[in-house]
Amino acid sequence: MKLNAVHSLGVVTPQRMQFDAPFACASGAQLPGFELVYETYGTLNADKSNAILVCHALSGHHHVAGLSSEDPKSAGWWDTMVGPGKPVDTNKFFVIGVNNLGGCHGSTGPGSHNPASGQPYGSSFPVVTVDDWVASQALLADRLGIRQFAAVMGGSLGGMQAMQWAINFPERVRHVLAIATAPSLTTENIAFNDVARNAILTDPDFHGGDFYQHGVVPTRGLRLARMLGHITYLSDDAMAGKFGRGLRSGDYQYGYGIEFEVESYLRYQGDKFAAYFDANTYLLMTKALDYFDPARLAGGSLRRAFAPVSADFLVVSFSSDWRFSPQRSRQIVQALLHNGRNVSYSEITSTHGHDSFLMENPHYFDVVRSYLNNVAAEGARP
Amino acid sequence: MKLNAVHSLGVVTPQRMQFDAPFACASGAQLPGFELVYETYGTLNADKSNAILVCHALSGHHHVAGLSSEDPKSAGWWDTMVGPGKPVDTNKFFVIGVNNLGGCHGSTGPGSHNPASGQPYGSSFPVVTVDDWVASQALLADRLGIRQFAAVMGGSLGGMQAMQWAINFPERVRHVLAIATAPSLTTENIAFNDVARNAILTDPDFHGGDFYQHGVVPTRGLRLARMLGHITYLSDDAMAGKFGRGLRSGDYQYGYGIEFEVESYLRYQGDKFAAYFDANTYLLMTKALDYFDPARLAGGSLRRAFAPVSADFLVVSFSSDWRFSPQRSRQIVQALLHNGRNVSYSEITSTHGHDSFLMENPHYFDVVRSYLNNVAAEGARP
Repeated sequence: MKLNAVHSLGVVTPQRMQFDAPFACASGAQLPGFELVYETYGTLNADKSNAILVCHALSGHHHVAGLSSEDPKSAGWWDTMVGPGKPVDTNKFFVIGVNNLGGCHGSTGPGSHNPASGQPYGSSFPVVTVDDWVASQALLADRLGIRQFAAVMGGSLGGMQAMQWAINFPERVRHVLAIATAPSLTTENIAFNDVARNAILTDPDFHGGDFYQHGVVPTRGLRLARMLGHITYLSDDAMAGKFGRGLRSGDYQYGYGIEFEVESYLRYQGDKFAAYFDANTYLLMTKALDYFDPARLAGGSLRRAFAPVSADFLVVSFSSDWRFSPQRSRQIVQALLHNGRNVSYSEITSTHGHDSFLMENPHYFDVVRSYLNNVAAEGARP
Repeated sequence: MKLNAVHSLGVVTPQRMQFDAPFACASGAQLPGFELVYETYGTLNADKSNAILVCHALSGHHHVAGLSSEDPKSAGWWDTMVGPGKPVDTNKFFVIGVNNLGGCHGSTGPGSHNPASGQPYGSSFPVVTVDDWVASQALLADRLGIRQFAAVMGGSLGGMQAMQWAINFPERVRHVLAIATAPSLTTENIAFNDVARNAILTDPDFHGGDFYQHGVVPTRGLRLARMLGHITYLSDDAMAGKFGRGLRSGDYQYGYGIEFEVESYLRYQGDKFAAYFDANTYLLMTKALDYFDPARLAGGSLRRAFAPVSADFLVVSFSSDWRFSPQRSRQIVQALLHNGRNVSYSEITSTHGHDSFLMENPHYFDVVRSYLNNVAAEGARP
């Protein structure tokens, strides 16, 4: 039985929520107000205790599951995971997907209209952080009347938000599912992000972030950033298995066009991404990744950073993920255990690298399913 | 005792050799002739049997050891390895460093004058291969009267040339030292090279390779290529140990300038490199890396590719080298052993990643030293 064939949410229509009060960012900058676009799946129960917030990663968005009303051919990015009878079962839970502040899928971001200038925000949009996202998501939860989430979950940068929720709002989160994530980026990860950002920043079409007014898009930079990103989301073995040293035309061409199959794949991914993703959003997402480091404000101690946490945790890592390695997940587990928290940990064997968290894998899906089977939809903590 | 303090070669003057006959490249292209710039260290013995050829890697050149007469502050890139009393002992051996054809340090390359057009070669310079380099180095050896090398050695792309020598000219090589190298690039390595090349190819200042006539240099692309390269030459642990999450100014700046120490390092390396290295040379060097795959013309069998080899081998790998991993070196060793060759293999524990082959390490240097101690300076094979 193919997992993604189990039932379907059908067509889902995104919703919008407007926040008119000024929003103070961690950076000290202030937004005059903002909008969030979100989708929901399933039904909120009477005491509003069955909500699960799904946080997205670098290039994700609010369209987590089902088919989008804006493009009925487009299934959500975690459609295999979220739906009726799926590991995150929408027959039991009310699931929310939200496009992060600063995003480029409908929430207020660098491409949005800046009421102060009458132009797109562009370079004037503040660098937002995981803290800012959690704060803005909490405002959305307030408006939906959700005092406490049954769970907050996410992979990669999404897992960072889930952890930050448990630190900043311990009373509002019963469970955290932190998948393929880390307590902070490694030096190497920051370095890769810096190269990707530099590709965008030095693209002549970037215009210091104000390319919208110039009628151009820094396609070259975005394309390079995505190509590089893709290499690091996969594993060496996965790439070797998928493409090997295969040649498109069977023989060496002695030129600089596409020759190896892997080049064809990367350029296709780069072109596709550059055609729709916003360059400023890419910059700020990578910066939020770089900045996430809860131990930093706790004297360098992750244990101390997790001291306020009261949620139970499921931590999941993948054996071939070299960007968010199992070792980093174990650090999360150890720091939580030190604080006496209930932690389940699973290291999934997978050859798909960091991308594993987005892919169907029976063991992985069983782990999430069984964890959530034991999460009460009712029974909010007092 | 610091190894690089042992004696010194003093100031070394590069020499030039002109080849007037047309040179047929593996690609089918032909050069009307070419020049190679090279340096030598030590003294060629009477029967010309004590010569060692050092092949360089992607960004290397002929200035292997000693101080350059062109810049007396500049020690050669392998000065710790090559010199009187050093592991490659110039009291015993006559060592040759040569800038590869297509390079940008004096040998004929894309920036050289094309007699056919009266302009720099630029885009008309052929894509050269490891085979072409070995063929051109053999012509240099002919002119120097060297019928057989005591050893051909190199790290990374240099090690690929050394292996190709043993395949193409079995009778001209008694020993090969193949260090931090591989029988071919992995898919992931090709992918990284493709991103680097795309950074250069899409730089508006590249002008299809003919930027010389436009009075510009594709600095942005070269800089990105080098930044990316640097990440892959180091190990995750080495970067973490050297820079950690250290901030230049002690606090987050919430902007896109240099913040983390590792960003400062990468940009400095990128800027330095882009100021002197030729973009076309970078492209062709990475292509030569991608193409190297001796098994390809032997039905996919490295064993069969090594069948002609008669040289003895020293193969060295480094534990933290994830770009040319010990596993790939072991494949070389196995294929040579299958052919009944004498092979020494050493896997050196080092945290410095691929860059380890350029760095002083007592165990590594002892391995090279003792191997070469047992290489006769005289006694060429018949």
